[in-house]
Amino acid sequence: MTIDLEALYVDLHTHPELSFQETRTASVAAAHLRDLGLRVEEGIGITGVVGVLENGPGPVVWLRADMDALPVEEQTGLPYASTARGISPAGVEVPVMHACGHDMHVTALIGALEALVATRTEWAGTVVAVLQPAEEFGAGSKAMIADGVLERFPRPDIVLGQHVTPLPVGTVGVRPGTQMAASDGLTVTMHGRGGHGSRPHATVDPVVMAAATVMRLQTIASREIDPRHVAVVTVGSIHAGLKHNIIPAEAVLELSLRYPDDETRERVLEKVERIVAAEAQASGALTPPTIVNDHSLPPTINDPAPTARVSAAIDAALGEGSVIDPGMFTGSEDVSWFARDAGVPLVFWFWGGIDPALYAGAVASGTVESVIPTNHSPFFAPVAGPTIEVGVTALTAAAREFLA
Amino acid sequence: MTIDLEALYVDLHTHPELSFQETRTASVAAAHLRDLGLRVEEGIGITGVVGVLENGPGPVVWLRADMDALPVEEQTGLPYASTARGISPAGVEVPVMHACGHDMHVTALIGALEALVATRTEWAGTVVAVLQPAEEFGAGSKAMIADGVLERFPRPDIVLGQHVTPLPVGTVGVRPGTQMAASDGLTVTMHGRGGHGSRPHATVDPVVMAAATVMRLQTIASREIDPRHVAVVTVGSIHAGLKHNIIPAEAVLELSLRYPDDETRERVLEKVERIVAAEAQASGALTPPTIVNDHSLPPTINDPAPTARVSAAIDAALGEGSVIDPGMFTGSEDVSWFARDAGVPLVFWFWGGIDPALYAGAVASGTVESVIPTNHSPFFAPVAGPTIEVGVTALTAAAREFLA
Amino acid sequence: MTIDLEALYVDLHTHPELSFQETRTASVAAAHLRDLGLRVEEGIGITGVVGVLENGPGPVVWLRADMDALPVEEQTGLPYASTARGISPAGVEVPVMHACGHDMHVTALIGALEALVATRTEWAGTVVAVLQPAEEFGAGSKAMIADGVLERFPRPDIVLGQHVTPLPVGTVGVRPGTQMAASDGLTVTMHGRGGHGSRPHATVDPVVMAAATVMRLQTIASREIDPRHVAVVTVGSIHAGLKHNIIPAEAVLELSLRYPDDETRERVLEKVERIVAAEAQASGALTPPTIVNDHSLPPTINDPAPTARVSAAIDAALGEGSVIDPGMFTGSEDVSWFARDAGVPLVFWFWGGIDPALYAGAVASGTVESVIPTNHSPFFAPVAGPTIEVGVTALTAAAREFLA
Amino acid sequence: MTIDLEALYVDLHTHPELSFQETRTASVAAAHLRDLGLRVEEGIGITGVVGVLENGPGPVVWLRADMDALPVEEQTGLPYASTARGISPAGVEVPVMHACGHDMHVTALIGALEALVATRTEWAGTVVAVLQPAEEFGAGSKAMIADGVLERFPRPDIVLGQHVTPLPVGTVGVRPGTQMAASDGLTVTMHGRGGHGSRPHATVDPVVMAAATVMRLQTIASREIDPRHVAVVTVGSIHAGLKHNIIPAEAVLELSLRYPDDETRERVLEKVERIVAAEAQASGALTPPTIVNDHSLPPTINDPAPTARVSAAIDAALGEGSVIDPGMFTGSEDVSWFARDAGVPLVFWFWGGIDPALYAGAVASGTVESVIPTNHSPFFAPVAGPTIEVGVTALTAAAREFLA
Repeated sequence: MTIDLEALYVDLHTHPELSFQETRTASVAAAHLRDLGLRVEEGIGITGVVGVLENGPGPVVWLRADMDALPVEEQTGLPYASTARGISPAGVEVPVMHACGHDMHVTALIGALEALVATRTEWAGTVVAVLQPAEEFGAGSKAMIADGVLERFPRPDIVLGQHVTPLPVGTVGVRPGTQMAASDGLTVTMHGRGGHGSRPHATVDPVVMAAATVMRLQTIASREIDPRHVAVVTVGSIHAGLKHNIIPAEAVLELSLRYPDDETRERVLEKVERIVAAEAQASGALTPPTIVNDHSLPPTINDPAPTARVSAAIDAALGEGSVIDPGMFTGSEDVSWFARDAGVPLVFWFWGGIDPALYAGAVASGTVESVIPTNHSPFFAPVAGPTIEVGVTALTAAAREFLA
Repeated sequence: MTIDLEALYVDLHTHPELSFQETRTASVAAAHLRDLGLRVEEGIGITGVVGVLENGPGPVVWLRADMDALPVEEQTGLPYASTARGISPAGVEVPVMHACGHDMHVTALIGALEALVATRTEWAGTVVAVLQPAEEFGAGSKAMIADGVLERFPRPDIVLGQHVTPLPVGTVGVRPGTQMAASDGLTVTMHGRGGHGSRPHATVDPVVMAAATVMRLQTIASREIDPRHVAVVTVGSIHAGLKHNIIPAEAVLELSLRYPDDETRERVLEKVERIVAAEAQASGALTPPTIVNDHSLPPTINDPAPTARVSAAIDAALGEGSVIDPGMFTGSEDVSWFARDAGVPLVFWFWGGIDPALYAGAVASGTVESVIPTNHSPFFAPVAGPTIEVGVTALTAAAREFLA
Repeated sequence: MTIDLEALYVDLHTHPELSFQETRTASVAAAHLRDLGLRVEEGIGITGVVGVLENGPGPVVWLRADMDALPVEEQTGLPYASTARGISPAGVEVPVMHACGHDMHVTALIGALEALVATRTEWAGTVVAVLQPAEEFGAGSKAMIADGVLERFPRPDIVLGQHVTPLPVGTVGVRPGTQMAASDGLTVTMHGRGGHGSRPHATVDPVVMAAATVMRLQTIASREIDPRHVAVVTVGSIHAGLKHNIIPAEAVLELSLRYPDDETRERVLEKVERIVAAEAQASGALTPPTIVNDHSLPPTINDPAPTARVSAAIDAALGEGSVIDPGMFTGSEDVSWFARDAGVPLVFWFWGGIDPALYAGAVASGTVESVIPTNHSPFFAPVAGPTIEVGVTALTAAAREFLA
Repeated sequence: MTIDLEALYVDLHTHPELSFQETRTASVAAAHLRDLGLRVEEGIGITGVVGVLENGPGPVVWLRADMDALPVEEQTGLPYASTARGISPAGVEVPVMHACGHDMHVTALIGALEALVATRTEWAGTVVAVLQPAEEFGAGSKAMIADGVLERFPRPDIVLGQHVTPLPVGTVGVRPGTQMAASDGLTVTMHGRGGHGSRPHATVDPVVMAAATVMRLQTIASREIDPRHVAVVTVGSIHAGLKHNIIPAEAVLELSLRYPDDETRERVLEKVERIVAAEAQASGALTPPTIVNDHSLPPTINDPAPTARVSAAIDAALGEGSVIDPGMFTGSEDVSWFARDAGVPLVFWFWGGIDPALYAGAVASGTVESVIPTNHSPFFAPVAGPTIEVGVTALTAAAREFLA
C-alpha cells in the first residue's frame, strides 16, 4: 500500500482552511496516520493532530508540520488552484489559499511517516508527528502546549521541522544559530473624529493620520536601526471608512515587525509607539491611539551540533552540495515553542520548490526577486511532484539521524 | 386627526435604512400620505415614493425629501439611538444611523402635507411630495427620473427642498446662486505586488503607495487651487490587506471631491489623476492605478427670484431675522436633477436643529466646529420637537408662496 | 521739462536693492522730487524718503510707494534685465531683482507728482510722497513711523497706494473691505542630532524631520480650515546640511502664512505649532523646535466710502469699465500701518502690467495661472511704457479726487 | 629628539582645513617628516604630501593618512576646540572642525615614522608616508594618483591605513573582506516654478516636491532592499529658497548612498532615480529633475592573508584580545584606490578613541549609540594622549610585519 502523495497534496491544496479552522485538513491527516498504524489524537489545541509511532527504546523525535492556509486569492492558474472561501476572525468572507505551502508540509510529513514505518526494522525509538494549527497566527504551537501536548505524548529529545521556500527543487537551506527572525504582530487603532467629507475642518481625519503614520514608520528601518541589523516594519493592513463622503472616526493598522534579537525588538517597538503617538498629536487627536500586541514570536534558533548532523544527513541523502547556508530568514515561526518549552534542541530547515531551470534563468537575469513568487504571494506554486519527494527524503533522513 | 410627528420621527430614527433599501421608511411615509388623502405611488426609482395633492387649478409645487441613512454607528446616547445594522453594497454588515437627518426631512414633509391639507381652502394648485431614495449615493433623484417621475406625475413649476443642519433651531439659511458644491466620488485602486510581510523587497507595497498618495493629495487644496476658491479632496475610505504579515496586492481608496464650479472640478480631477499615477510610479508599480468615477453631482444653484420669495416667506413665518445667508456649503446634493431635467427653478435651504442656548455658548467660546456635531457625525442629534415644528413651518410657508 | 519715466524705470530696474539697503533708489527718487520743487527728506526709517508738495489750504493726501527689490535671479531675458547681486541679512551674496514691481511704483509716483505739480493751479491742499523701504520685510512702514514720519510731516487725511499686478494693462482692481490678507512670517528651527551620513541610527535626522513637517503642514489648508476660508501655509525656504555625508544637527524652515482675519490667524498659528512640535517628537528629537515670528502684517482693508470715490475717479480717467473688483488678494502689505496709526482711511488698489493681447489669449486658453508670470517670479516683467502711463494716470486721478 | 605628538595633535586640531585646502596641515606634516630625515614632496594632488624612508632592500610599505576636516561647528567644549572658519566649494563661509579625526591620523602617522626611524636597524625595506587630501570628497587619493604618485615614488607592495573611531581606547577593529561600504554622493536638483508665497496655485512648489521626495526615499531601505543587506540613503543636505514669502524655483538635495556591493548599488541608484522622477511628476513639474553623481567610492576590501598578519601583529603589540572583528562599517573611504590601481593588497583598520570607562558604562546602560559621539558629530572628541599612543603602536606594528 502506497499513499498517492501528489493526489493528497492536490486535495489539501484545493481545500485550504484558515487558522484554527483546519478541521478537514486535520481529519485527512489523522486518517492517513491511523492507516499507517500510528496512535492518533485530534483536537489538540483546537484543531491540532498528534500521531505517535513507537518503535522500541530510543530517542523521541518530534516531526512537526503546520496545516493552516491564508486569506489570499489564488492567481497561480494551476488546474488545482483554490477557489475556496472562508470566514476571517473579523467575520468577513475572504478567499483562502495555501499561499505558504503548509499543504506541502503536511504531505511531506505523511510521506516521511510512511517511509519510517516501511523501514522500521532499521531504526529504534519513537517518532511523534505533530500537526499544528494556526502557525500564521503565531498561536498554534502555544495552543497545543496549553492543551498538554508536552505531557500527554512522549516528550521530545529533539524537534525537527521544515518549510518549503523559493529555492530550486533539490536544494535545502539550513544554518546553525538564528535561522528565522523574531516577530511581533501589532494592531494599531488611531482615533480621529468623524464627520461629513465636505467639512474636514470639523473633523480629525484618521485617514490622513494613518497615512502620515505609515510614511513615518518607514523611517524606523531607514534611519533608526543600524543598517547592518535586520529590522522590518510592515503595515500589512490598513482599514478606515465605509464611504467616499464620510470621514470616519478611526483607522486600524496591522503591523508585522521582524528583528533578529531582543535588543532590536525593544528598539523597534519603542519607536513604533513613539511615532504612532506623535502622529496622532500632529493631527490634533483628542484620544491617543491604542496598540495591541496580537502575537509575539521568538527567533527560530537552530542548535549548532544537531544542525550539523541534519545538514550532513540531508546532504548525503539528496546528493553532495544540496545543502546550503541560506542566511537568516526574516520570516518567523512558532515552531520554537515546542523545543523551548521542552528544553530540547531544535533544527528547522527550508527546502526548495521552484523548477531548477526557471530558478537558474532568474538568477542569470538577476530577476529572482521579481519573477519567483514568494510565500504568501497569490502566485506561490511549488512544483508538486519533485518537491514532495525531496521533502519526504529530507525529513526522513533528518529523523533517521537521531533514531538509534 | 393629528399626526404625532415626534413619534413618527423617533420611529424613523430607530429604523434607519441604507441607500436604495428604504422600504420600511417608504411604506411608513406612503401610509401617512394616503391617510392624508393623497394619491400615492411607491417603488419609483427602486424605493422612492410620490404623493400627489391636487387642489384645483394652479402651479405645481414639488416638495422633496430624501429617506436614506448612513453606515455610521450612532453614539448620541439618545434614548431612541439607533442600534440597527444593515448590509453594505460590498456585502458587509455595518451599523446604520440617520446621521444626516433624512428622518427629519421625511417627518417635516409629512407635517407640511398635513398642514397644506388642513388649509386647502386657502390655496389652489398641486403639491407633489417626492420622497427620494439614495441621496447619499448621489443616485436617487436620477433613479426616479429614469423611472419616469417627471412624466408620470404633474410636472413641477418649481422644486423646493430643505435640509436640517447644525444651525440653532429657529434659524434658516438660504442664498441665491451656488448654495452647495459640486462633487465627484472616485474609487482609486492602486496595484502593488503581494508577498510575505517579512520580505518587502520582493513586493511592491500598496499600503505605502496608498499612504504616500493620501499625503500628496493634500497638496491639491494646499498648493494647487487658488486659496480663495473652494476645493476639498477627502479620502473617505482606505482599505488594503487582511493580515499583519501579508503584504497585499492592492489598496483601494474612496475619494470625495468638492468644488463650486466646472473649471475647478476639471483642475482637481486632473491633479488627482496626475498624483495617483505618479505615486504608483514612485513605488515601481507594474500596473497603473485605476480610477472609477462612482457619481458626479452638479452644484446646487438656487434661482435668485424664487429664492428671494422663499426667504421672505420663511422669515415672515418664523419671525423677522430668522433667515440668514449661510454662504455656500461644501456639501452636495442630487436634488438639482429634478429641477434641471424639468427645466424649472429650484430653491433649497437649510434649517437649524441645535439647541439655541448650546449653540450660542459654542459661538461665545469659539468652539462651534469642535463641539456641535455635524451631519454624518455619530453624534449628530437635532433636538426633535422644535426642529420638526420649524421644518414644517418653513416648508409650508415656502410652498404656500407659490400656490395661488 | 519732462521726466523720461521709461528711462527712470529702466534705471531703477537695473539697479535693484534689497530691503533697508535702498540707498541709490532713495537718492534717485529724492533728486527727482527736489527737481519738481518738493521739500524732501531722506533717511526716514533707515532709507525712506518723504517729499512734501504744499499747495494752499486743503486736505493732506499721502501717496505711498515702496522701493525694495527681492533676492531673485532675473530670467526675463529683457535687454534691461537685472544682473545685480546683494548681501542678504544672513550675509550671503544673492542675486537681486525687482520681481515685485516696486521700481514701477516709484516711477509712477514720481510721474504722478510731476502731473500734480504741472496742474497745481487746478487743485489745493498738500500732497505727501512717501517712499518706504523694506515692504518685503513687512517692516518699512513701521520703521518710518518709529522715525516720526507721522509727526515730522503733514499728517494725512487719507493714505493712497497702488501695486502693479498681473492684470492686463489698462485694468485696475480695487474693492471695499479686505483687499489683501493678513500675514505672518515664521522661522522654525528643528533640532536633530548630527552625525555621519552612513550611521543614521546614531543621529536624529533633521532633514527627515523637516520633510515630514512640510508634508504635514499641507494638511492645515487641506483639512483643518473651513474650505470656504482663505488659509495659506507656504514653506518659502528650507535649509539643512552642508554636505552629502554629514547628517546635520538642525533644519531651518521659513514659513509665510496668509489669512483674512484674526480668528483664522490664531487657528493656523496654533496648528503650525502643534504640527511642528509633534513631528519633532515623532523623530525622537531631544530638543523641542523653536518658532520665531519674524513679522506680522494686518489685513489691508479699504474704507468703503473713499474706495467708491477712488474707483469712480480712476474709471473715469482710464475709460469706463477699467475698474473691476478683483476679489481679496492673498498677498499682504504693510501700507496699512500709515493709515491705522494716523487713524485715517486707506485706499489701496492694483493696476495691470500685462500686454492685454497676451492676457486675453491666456484667458481664452485657460492658462493665465501657468503662463502669466506673477509677482516674485523670476519672469515677472510688466510692459514698461503703457504700464507706467496708466499708473501715473490712476494715482493722479485718485489724488485729485481728494484735493480741493 | 622626540616629537611632542600631543602638542602636534592639538595644533592640527585647532587649525582644521577643508578638503583640497590642507596647505598648513601639509606644511606642518612635511616639516616633521623632513626633520625625521625623509625625502619629502608636497603639492601631490593639489595639497598631498609624500615622504619616503628608504632603509635598504626589502618590501615597499605605504602608510597612508588623510588630512582634511569638515564644515562642522565644534561643540566639544574642549580647551583646544576649533573656532576656525573656511570657505566651502559653494563660496560660503562655514565653520570647520576635525570631526572625523584626520588630525589624529596625521599625528599617528608621524609618530609611527618617528618610531620606524628610531628602530631602523631592526628592519629593512622602504616606508612611504602618504598624506592625502580631500578624503571627505572621496577625491584625494584619485587626485594624487592622477598626479603620478604611483610612478614618482616607490610603488607599494602593500598599502596600510587606519582610522580613529568610537571604540574604547586600546581596541582595534579589523576584518578580512569588506571592511567598509561602497558609496555614491549625488546632487539632485528638483525644478519647480517660483512665485509669490501667497499664490501657491500659480507655482510648482519645489519645497513640497523635495519634502515628498525625502519621505519617499526612506522606502528604499525600508521596503525595496532585502532587510538583510546594508543600504543607506541619507539626504545630507536640502536647500531651497531665500525668504518666507517667495516660493523658490528649485530645491537641491545632496544624497549619500551606502551599500556593500555593486548589485545593491545598482538597485539603489535605480530606485533613487525612479522616485525622484516620479515625485517631480506628482508635483506637475514642467522640467524633470537632474541627478549628478559627485563621487563614487568602491567598497574597502581587506585582503584576507595580510589582514590576518596585521591582526596578529597589532594584537601582540597592544595585548592579546585587543583586536576584534567590528563587522562591516557603513562608512566609506577612498584609500582603496592606491591599492587597486597599484594592484597590491590593502589592510585598513579602526582604532578606538573613547575613554574605556565611559564606553563600558554606555555599553552597560545600552546607550552607546546615543551617548558616544560618532565621527562627523560636532561632539566627536577622541581622548588625545592614549589614542595617539595606540595609533602609533598599531601602525608601527603593522608596518613592521611587512618589513624584512
